[in-house]
Amino acid sequence: MGEGDSVLTEVKSLNEECGVFGVWGHPEAARLNYFGLHSLQHRGQEGAGIVANHQGALKGHRNVGLISEVFKDERELERLKGDSAIGHVRYGTAGSGGINNIQPFLFKFYDEEIALAHNGNLINAKSLRLELEQAGAIFHSNSDTEVLMHLIRRSKEAQFIDKLKESLKTVKGGFAYILMTSDAMIGALDPNGFRPLSIGQMKNGAYVLASETCALDVVGANFVRQVMPGEIVIINDEGYTIETYTDDTTMAICSMEYIYFARPDSDIAGVNVHTARKNMGRRLAEEAPIDADIVIGVPNSSLSAASGYAEKSGIPYEMGLIKNQYIARTFIQPTQELREQGVRMKLSAVRGVVAGKKVVMVDDSIVRGTTSRRIVQLLKEAGAKEVHVRIASPPLRYPCFYGIDIQTREELIAANHSVSEIKDLIFADSLSFLSEEGLIESIGLNFDAPYSGLCMAYFNGDFPTDLYDYEADYLKSLGTAPVLK
Amino acid sequence: MGEGDSVLTEVKSLNEECGVFGVWGHPEAARLNYFGLHSLQHRGQEGAGIVANHQGALKGHRNVGLISEVFKDERELERLKGDSAIGHVRYGTAGSGGINNIQPFLFKFYDEEIALAHNGNLINAKSLRLELEQAGAIFHSNSDTEVLMHLIRRSKEAQFIDKLKESLKTVKGGFAYILMTSDAMIGALDPNGFRPLSIGQMKNGAYVLASETCALDVVGANFVRQVMPGEIVIINDEGYTIETYTDDTTMAICSMEYIYFARPDSDIAGVNVHTARKNMGRRLAEEAPIDADIVIGVPNSSLSAASGYAEKSGIPYEMGLIKNQYIARTFIQPTQELREQGVRMKLSAVRGVVAGKKVVMVDDSIVRGTTSRRIVQLLKEAGAKEVHVRIASPPLRYPCFYGIDIQTREELIAANHSVSEIKDLIFADSLSFLSEEGLIESIGLNFDAPYSGLCMAYFNGDFPTDLYDYEADYLKSLGTAPVLK
Amino acid sequence: MGEGDSVLTEVKSLNEECGVFGVWGHPEAARLNYFGLHSLQHRGQEGAGIVANHQGALKGHRNVGLISEVFKDERELERLKGDSAIGHVRYGTAGSGGINNIQPFLFKFYDEEIALAHNGNLINAKSLRLELEQAGAIFHSNSDTEVLMHLIRRSKEAQFIDKLKESLKTVKGGFAYILMTSDAMIGALDPNGFRPLSIGQMKNGAYVLASETCALDVVGANFVRQVMPGEIVIINDEGYTIETYTDDTTMAICSMEYIYFARPDSDIAGVNVHTARKNMGRRLAEEAPIDADIVIGVPNSSLSAASGYAEKSGIPYEMGLIKNQYIARTFIQPTQELREQGVRMKLSAVRGVVAGKKVVMVDDSIVRGTTSRRIVQLLKEAGAKEVHVRIASPPLRYPCFYGIDIQTREELIAANHSVSEIKDLIFADSLSFLSEEGLIESIGLNFDAPYSGLCMAYFNGDFPTDLYDYEADYLKSLGTAPVLK
Amino acid sequence: MGEGDSVLTEVKSLNEECGVFGVWGHPEAARLNYFGLHSLQHRGQEGAGIVANHQGALKGHRNVGLISEVFKDERELERLKGDSAIGHVRYGTAGSGGINNIQPFLFKFYDEEIALAHNGNLINAKSLRLELEQAGAIFHSNSDTEVLMHLIRRSKEAQFIDKLKESLKTVKGGFAYILMTSDAMIGALDPNGFRPLSIGQMKNGAYVLASETCALDVVGANFVRQVMPGEIVIINDEGYTIETYTDDTTMAICSMEYIYFARPDSDIAGVNVHTARKNMGRRLAEEAPIDADIVIGVPNSSLSAASGYAEKSGIPYEMGLIKNQYIARTFIQPTQELREQGVRMKLSAVRGVVAGKKVVMVDDSIVRGTTSRRIVQLLKEAGAKEVHVRIASPPLRYPCFYGIDIQTREELIAANHSVSEIKDLIFADSLSFLSEEGLIESIGLNFDAPYSGLCMAYFNGDFPTDLYDYEADYLKSLGTAPVLK
Repeated sequence: MGEGDSVLTEVKSLNEECGVFGVWGHPEAARLNYFGLHSLQHRGQEGAGIVANHQGALKGHRNVGLISEVFKDERELERLKGDSAIGHVRYGTAGSGGINNIQPFLFKFYDEEIALAHNGNLINAKSLRLELEQAGAIFHSNSDTEVLMHLIRRSKEAQFIDKLKESLKTVKGGFAYILMTSDAMIGALDPNGFRPLSIGQMKNGAYVLASETCALDVVGANFVRQVMPGEIVIINDEGYTIETYTDDTTMAICSMEYIYFARPDSDIAGVNVHTARKNMGRRLAEEAPIDADIVIGVPNSSLSAASGYAEKSGIPYEMGLIKNQYIARTFIQPTQELREQGVRMKLSAVRGVVAGKKVVMVDDSIVRGTTSRRIVQLLKEAGAKEVHVRIASPPLRYPCFYGIDIQTREELIAANHSVSEIKDLIFADSLSFLSEEGLIESIGLNFDAPYSGLCMAYFNGDFPTDLYDYEADYLKSLGTAPVLK
Repeated sequence: MGEGDSVLTEVKSLNEECGVFGVWGHPEAARLNYFGLHSLQHRGQEGAGIVANHQGALKGHRNVGLISEVFKDERELERLKGDSAIGHVRYGTAGSGGINNIQPFLFKFYDEEIALAHNGNLINAKSLRLELEQAGAIFHSNSDTEVLMHLIRRSKEAQFIDKLKESLKTVKGGFAYILMTSDAMIGALDPNGFRPLSIGQMKNGAYVLASETCALDVVGANFVRQVMPGEIVIINDEGYTIETYTDDTTMAICSMEYIYFARPDSDIAGVNVHTARKNMGRRLAEEAPIDADIVIGVPNSSLSAASGYAEKSGIPYEMGLIKNQYIARTFIQPTQELREQGVRMKLSAVRGVVAGKKVVMVDDSIVRGTTSRRIVQLLKEAGAKEVHVRIASPPLRYPCFYGIDIQTREELIAANHSVSEIKDLIFADSLSFLSEEGLIESIGLNFDAPYSGLCMAYFNGDFPTDLYDYEADYLKSLGTAPVLK
Repeated sequence: MGEGDSVLTEVKSLNEECGVFGVWGHPEAARLNYFGLHSLQHRGQEGAGIVANHQGALKGHRNVGLISEVFKDERELERLKGDSAIGHVRYGTAGSGGINNIQPFLFKFYDEEIALAHNGNLINAKSLRLELEQAGAIFHSNSDTEVLMHLIRRSKEAQFIDKLKESLKTVKGGFAYILMTSDAMIGALDPNGFRPLSIGQMKNGAYVLASETCALDVVGANFVRQVMPGEIVIINDEGYTIETYTDDTTMAICSMEYIYFARPDSDIAGVNVHTARKNMGRRLAEEAPIDADIVIGVPNSSLSAASGYAEKSGIPYEMGLIKNQYIARTFIQPTQELREQGVRMKLSAVRGVVAGKKVVMVDDSIVRGTTSRRIVQLLKEAGAKEVHVRIASPPLRYPCFYGIDIQTREELIAANHSVSEIKDLIFADSLSFLSEEGLIESIGLNFDAPYSGLCMAYFNGDFPTDLYDYEADYLKSLGTAPVLK
Repeated sequence: MGEGDSVLTEVKSLNEECGVFGVWGHPEAARLNYFGLHSLQHRGQEGAGIVANHQGALKGHRNVGLISEVFKDERELERLKGDSAIGHVRYGTAGSGGINNIQPFLFKFYDEEIALAHNGNLINAKSLRLELEQAGAIFHSNSDTEVLMHLIRRSKEAQFIDKLKESLKTVKGGFAYILMTSDAMIGALDPNGFRPLSIGQMKNGAYVLASETCALDVVGANFVRQVMPGEIVIINDEGYTIETYTDDTTMAICSMEYIYFARPDSDIAGVNVHTARKNMGRRLAEEAPIDADIVIGVPNSSLSAASGYAEKSGIPYEMGLIKNQYIARTFIQPTQELREQGVRMKLSAVRGVVAGKKVVMVDDSIVRGTTSRRIVQLLKEAGAKEVHVRIASPPLRYPCFYGIDIQTREELIAANHSVSEIKDLIFADSLSFLSEEGLIESIGLNFDAPYSGLCMAYFNGDFPTDLYDYEADYLKSLGTAPVLK
């Protein structure tokens, strides 16, 4: 599975919901957003936007497509003058509301202008929206992001920051928000810290907020600190201050950020993502050794784990799969033959490397199994004698409600089949998953929280929060598809 | 240096001139071209086109951009009906004639229709063009490709194939041509075989021609044989036949195809590219060992060599540099700070991996040195204690006239500086290049030809042909910039 | 002055705000909207959209540009399935909010879906918006149209139609609304009937609503009746019913619809627009006769009046000015010479017709005078001996607040200069305007209302309503620019 | 029939082949081309281009679409620097070769650069092309224009102007060429002067060449003289000189230029087009009077004739048909009802004007009769009591080979039916055509040549030249479709 890009477009895979970025205090704020969002592009490819603040007046540009497509005409960047700007890259299902859902949202009121960008998923958005609509609110997008703005505008608090705090207490789920008003840029994190959000500082003193530290690096900003659960960071011309809107916090960083989503050069909670993945691979080699000729990883997200597996096992690490670096739309192909070639457009097996070999194929995770099956087939067609699949994370058996785009258990192969059954379904010669302990120890967080501060709900159903709007459906799904271990 | 994509757009780097592809005998010939050309996209990103043959009538579509952009609207593919089709991806400098230069060229005469696609560079095109214009010929592109068609149409031979043979004897330099007429698809290779060209066959019997075998794989075609120097392959509804237009041949495969251009999953002359690169890395470890903590490769083209170096040296292979998989235009940035961030948009150092480490940085080649210097800087800014640069090929000291876009010695750092000087210029702690013998033995060809069948002119100035139109300028350049070893 | 198209783009001229259209009960509802909106294109060229109702579910497409540009790809029309659809063409100043302001607006609530299109201008929108925002409402456009939806959703009435009636009583000014819910299409007109709105019926029984009857003709619908001031027409699968939301109505049809905006083939309140204009020309010939050789009209909107003038006066009607039927953007030209040529791109004088002649030039109105001056110059440069300007309406001395884009008196030449001064400013040999009585009698309405049912406020400042949000500024403008007669 | 725009797109109608324009000696030469070509847009809407000459170096831009679409981005105009430029608007059937056929053609040779634009049609192009291809020439377009350049380049003459003269003697048919070399702009007209070409001069001394004088007016150039049959005009920094390449000339101006193609504000051979048309209408009123209530013209090309008819007959001239000024693509409509509405999108009858009236409908010509039938139907549906069709030209019975896009007699209704039959086919109550004498006298040329210098071949088959490549097919067509009078 590639980063944010499935082997088959028809297979809806794990998808992060969005990346956020912001700069306060640099004359080229919009251009810095362009750089920063480009480095966060793996977090969402459906749409992008930037809102800039020019002497208190906000102006934005957003559209469907990659950030480089949205700002294909450089004049669009030049129009976004100002010393501060926030931006967003969006993941969204096709046809999910078009341009109306692309962020940052820009609201203009008689008394203030506010831009808002959101990474995550609220779990009580549906009921809040119902309440708000019943009270006369009009929504203009499908997005749950808009809920926050309605709460803020309806708050009876006197100060903006207090309205915001009140609203943040009302919304539930996973969220890393960046807001921009005329005179401040504000970041806010949910009480579990599901999504990462970091503060950086540039040489000229400008402050930067970003979903991942790779975006700090790209603009040459030094890492200052992570935003912590329940915190609000307020950045203005005076500097930055941290406030909290709740003390009822428990760290539960999304483990999939380490496993799959985040860029290897990012650090989350002080842990480098590449290093964590390499550790997962090493641990996997200990937990599930196999006699083989070569170890290969599924590019790009599994290469770190594969090299760890190779190093630990002593089996040579080889480049047995090549990902085409150019992205092409796979049209719906009229024949089965063409559909299979469509797969090979994206990923190829290196015949000269794998032919006649016993191959350990390391992947980060298995969602539906379709992709794994195709890759095993690719390798066998290229002459691999045996293909031993090693997954550098535990089986995905539960949905996520905090910002990952899998909300039903039906689509998860491991929720419906045993490991042995999955092995057969994907035509592998053997199959092993990393243990939950192995995952936790490989990442190596040490927060005073369950699982050392990781959210492990995917794997064990232990959700760090109540499920609100999702609870009924979830319980129903447990009934119809009993959990297999 | 990434495949076909320099770290800095302002640094004009090594660039392949084009990739060619063709299918004869499959009802989805145009779609197969789309797949095949996508897998050859690394050979040229400036333009692309396909010409299809529908019951003897040829129709084409071409435009600037990636193949996925040229055929963004699927209806353009659907218009290209027919059982055979040839295609082209073009590398070309910006503004080099626009759409007129994008291939395949499609010519319609009173007596026949011919499509023509070309990979390579002619060295007597300028003088041939002058002669032809003086004889009344009108050219419609800047491209040297058009020359062949004028020669064919002016030939006094009776049969098309004889006209073609006569013309192929007249043009000099590097060329892999694919032509399509109403009733045949024809491939032709220059007498030195500078550029690769392979024949494959699909399950339904359709024949495929392609610059690289990765394009055979992508359409599920089996490799049949390589087209050899001086050969013409004629494919029609009866099957394929091989003819020769000259016996005066000497194999001199472009060594840069192995070092840098070709995709790792391609085989050239029976040698897998990834394997050749890994061997170069292993040999480099023997020739230029160093005491270090980690080995890293410059993505993507140097990863194979780096893993070879690591394996042989026993130093751990790490992912110390990350290439952004999304391609974005780097606008001309107004300030130095922004320009440096533009570099980081494309390539990032992984701080968590390299900080405090003695790093062996393996790259495939050094052209101007600018890119190497920037990468060394990136690594040092990310905390690398030492950066030892190991280049998996010998120093580039001479231009190429057979299809690589470097035609003057002034731009080659190794033509103007000693290895020790280069080390200082790129801020490396040490620098070594692979030896010429090391390169030849790593690739391991065994043709009965100089350098076992490789063109080594880049490294030693031993050009396999006379230089024709380029000779005067080349000799002059030797005078002004004496060769350093 | 051409219809909706000034001679010079830099001269902001009279501009209608929008056209609306809707069909209920025809399987090709969206295509009929395309036809109908194309025939209303003269009412707005900045943006267009259609919302279709497919079995109760609403789906829309809108964008900047002409309707033919917005639906350039026919597949966009095909996506809009359903038996009913409403559409809108928008006039809007450049940069006035972009796509967010293009209608129909489509709102999706938990309990209903509503589409809304508006022709006209509210005069208390600003204060209503302020009140609504203070009560927590969030607006997503600059448009005053959105206000109505907030009022509807906040209404305490039980039934949708009662919510709508209550809201219609709250908004003030000029409006012809078309709304579409899951099960009905609704038209509503302001208490003065400033904007026209007609009901038609197709042969298959489908009902049509349209700003002008020309749009009924284009889809082959028969005229049923005009919507009257204070009326709501509710169309559903049972047929249509008329209700009223207020009895406090006074007919005051915008006289500029007859003079300039509407298409000549439309009927408004039973009066054909071409015929009304021809009458204005005839009356003008009586009121302001002149000894001349030929009569010419400024294409296209003044041709009817010019032919009336010619017929009555017995002076031959000639085609002395030609409007280029192709629309081209006039770039901002670097020199005065180029700017003048830019004018001639749009309008040319026919030298062979006007040279040596005493010309009566009939135009529908004078706004700033700039255009008139340029046309007089064009005619004189083409050799006209004398140019006698005859305006087929009274002098424009007051702004409009009900849907015409002139809201300040400073830009109106007749608000600041006497007729004699204007004559000199536009270089005319003589100048006359139609009298107010002449205008009223030429149109020939006979409603029991001031001015027989016309709004004459442009000419005499007699506004049919209070001015609400505009009152203060208007009174101030009267002070600074005293009214000249 | 509108100018260059049929009522129904599916009806291929009379179409001019192209307009040419050029400026020598003005710093804004490309912008002036933009203005001039816009005023010639009615002569061709399929493609447009401009080539500018900057200090002897030629650079061009061309594309499909209107001139305003081709130069939508003003930067394309700014790129075309230089003191001289030539341009072209092209009429061409859809799919006729795409961008390759769009002019001006720009040729770059080792010894010179030449741009070439052509209005007209060669009648021996096919045989010349065959000869040239047999001699090794390669053509890159379908256009017959390219032939001239091959002839020039293959000429054995020493001087460019002599090569050109020799080539002009070789090509046969209708042509008005504009060429531009590094140091001159050259116009050339065929020996019959079928197509108009005029010389103008701007205030700064710059010379202008244009297909119609309306384009001189638009750039503020004074008319200098018409280019005469057999003449070459050479414009360079010294001024202009006239040479002749043949004395064997006979004036035969295309009568359809006066009847239909040219803009009313243009003069051709000293006769204003509007005035000629008005005279045709007056003469038609004398030749074919009728008792009726109103006279209407089919917009836009028949309005002049209609006003002439009205004036002479004393019957009031009315605006009974309205052409939508906005151009929209008529998609292929799925039902007959929608197809009829598609017609009404372009042209509407004014019910209030025609209802209950006996109408004289004046049109300029009848080609297939389809359009006339639809318009008569429109008028009757709008309530016209009687529709008397009066055509301001004689019946079209013969094809044209000199630049009008009707080359077979099968499509001409008057070649296959009597006037009485046509009347019935178009549902008219009566039908009359202008006589040939009436046409000639209305235009009023007095050249010493047949028909006073008009080409009347359309009407009487009296072609001014041999027919060369078209002769065989033409004679065959006479056999199968005997001429009706």
